[in-house]
Amino acid sequence: MKLLRFGASGHERPGVLTDEGAVLDLSALTSDIDGAFLASGGPDRVRAALAAGTLPVVDITGLRVGAPVARPGKVVCVGLNYRAHAEETGAAIPPRPVVFMKDPGTVVGPYDEVLIPRGSSKTDWEVELAVVIGSRARYLESPLHALDAVAGYAVSNDVSEREFQLEFSPQWDLGKSCETFNPLGPWLVTPDEAGDPQKLGLRLSVNGTQRQNSATGDMIFDVAYLVWYLSQYMVLEPGDVINTGTPAGVALGLPGTPYLRPGDTVELAIDGLGAQRQTFAQA
Amino acid sequence: MKLLRFGASGHERPGVLTDEGAVLDLSALTSDIDGAFLASGGPDRVRAALAAGTLPVVDITGLRVGAPVARPGKVVCVGLNYRAHAEETGAAIPPRPVVFMKDPGTVVGPYDEVLIPRGSSKTDWEVELAVVIGSRARYLESPLHALDAVAGYAVSNDVSEREFQLEFSPQWDLGKSCETFNPLGPWLVTPDEAGDPQKLGLRLSVNGTQRQNSATGDMIFDVAYLVWYLSQYMVLEPGDVINTGTPAGVALGLPGTPYLRPGDTVELAIDGLGAQRQTFAQA
Repeated sequence: MKLLRFGASGHERPGVLTDEGAVLDLSALTSDIDGAFLASGGPDRVRAALAAGTLPVVDITGLRVGAPVARPGKVVCVGLNYRAHAEETGAAIPPRPVVFMKDPGTVVGPYDEVLIPRGSSKTDWEVELAVVIGSRARYLESPLHALDAVAGYAVSNDVSEREFQLEFSPQWDLGKSCETFNPLGPWLVTPDEAGDPQKLGLRLSVNGTQRQNSATGDMIFDVAYLVWYLSQYMVLEPGDVINTGTPAGVALGLPGTPYLRPGDTVELAIDGLGAQRQTFAQA
Repeated sequence: MKLLRFGASGHERPGVLTDEGAVLDLSALTSDIDGAFLASGGPDRVRAALAAGTLPVVDITGLRVGAPVARPGKVVCVGLNYRAHAEETGAAIPPRPVVFMKDPGTVVGPYDEVLIPRGSSKTDWEVELAVVIGSRARYLESPLHALDAVAGYAVSNDVSEREFQLEFSPQWDLGKSCETFNPLGPWLVTPDEAGDPQKLGLRLSVNGTQRQNSATGDMIFDVAYLVWYLSQYMVLEPGDVINTGTPAGVALGLPGTPYLRPGDTVELAIDGLGAQRQTFAQA
């Protein structure tokens, strides 16, 4: 099942995309796709309503698509989780997940304009598999059942400013938390439909040139391990987002470090999770 | 003015503390003390109601005191912002603020039990001046008027697990984001009453032994500079919290590194902002 949110920023309405490509309005079922909806069996209610055929079609032509979950309580990021990306940045392969955070206010829709911060000369892209939490995860016993806490998956662009991130202090969050720096969506794809989260191709291009092309099977720490690991150190709540790391091919690691400039267009996609497209503009 | 929230976790009601020590119920004025209340002139409405004498007294004896602002959108932390603390941790004096984040879900009341995480042997304390944002701050022009964006100040304990923070990866957030790791309050003290934020003494004791005793005048980067600086890299929203750094005297820097154990009691206070007291327990 593919859940989505459409409408102006801050006024999104909930919907579900059918196999035939129609969007059905979920407003009668829930006011939003958020942590409370996910934790209270919302997706099952949508499934039942789909089977009953009671949901009205809505024409979203010309409407903005928002992030597929309402503002997350937190966005947890995992760094250097693909071997070739760790190597391109000059970092060692980490013995444990490298965990940092992004301002959850950075989450925007998949086609929204992304702002290059004032003073930035090193704005970079990062296609990532985002995990959306569906039920509270606290000291999970093992990675074995950790995926039970997952509501679904989405495409995420973990936009990063490398000077702010790496040169202004040893802590990365500053360069990860700039306004509009986390396009998410278009859909929240439920686990039954997304399939094995370690068998998804992910790719990104800038102005038509492919820059990243990898597969989630190349993660150093897989999704189940990450959810379990994080739950040992923090409480994951419904609606929280985990960005699981980016593969090789970011500007930081490319010859000539071709960082993003106003007017550049970034397109990214993950198998089965849809595609994003952002044009970058000066803040 | 001293704003506070009282009642069970997740069900707090808003109040104001009078100079005579009575608590007046603000429920008729606002459902909560949160970003929307702060951004919409809420404190001015409380002032007017106080002058009009229309607010009912409420007896909070036996009731829990919550954090004085509802769950923040983000908690931004500044590291190594007191010279002597940077020295005790073996770090260089930073040329720019060291910025990291804490899971905003860690915010709890000032007298709530704090949990020592499972597997922790290095849980540590940090008394800090917390700044609560009152109006949106984005690319502020200079530190000169940056304090206009501040709704008020509060006592904060930026509880930290040093092994998770410093040994598990170079990124600190993991050791800062454990459940219950950010006692806040008891009050949100408005700037007119708090006075100059760089002229406040702050202190902390563990089981009656004083461990931290300093003054906000010793900050390397002052509050106005921090609010201005952060606004260049992220959007500060009403209700967001900034922990402005801790002075010397944490367990990490003390002889014998006397980290917290279950049953330990930590008391902390800042001039004019009230006092906290937490007993630590095993998670």
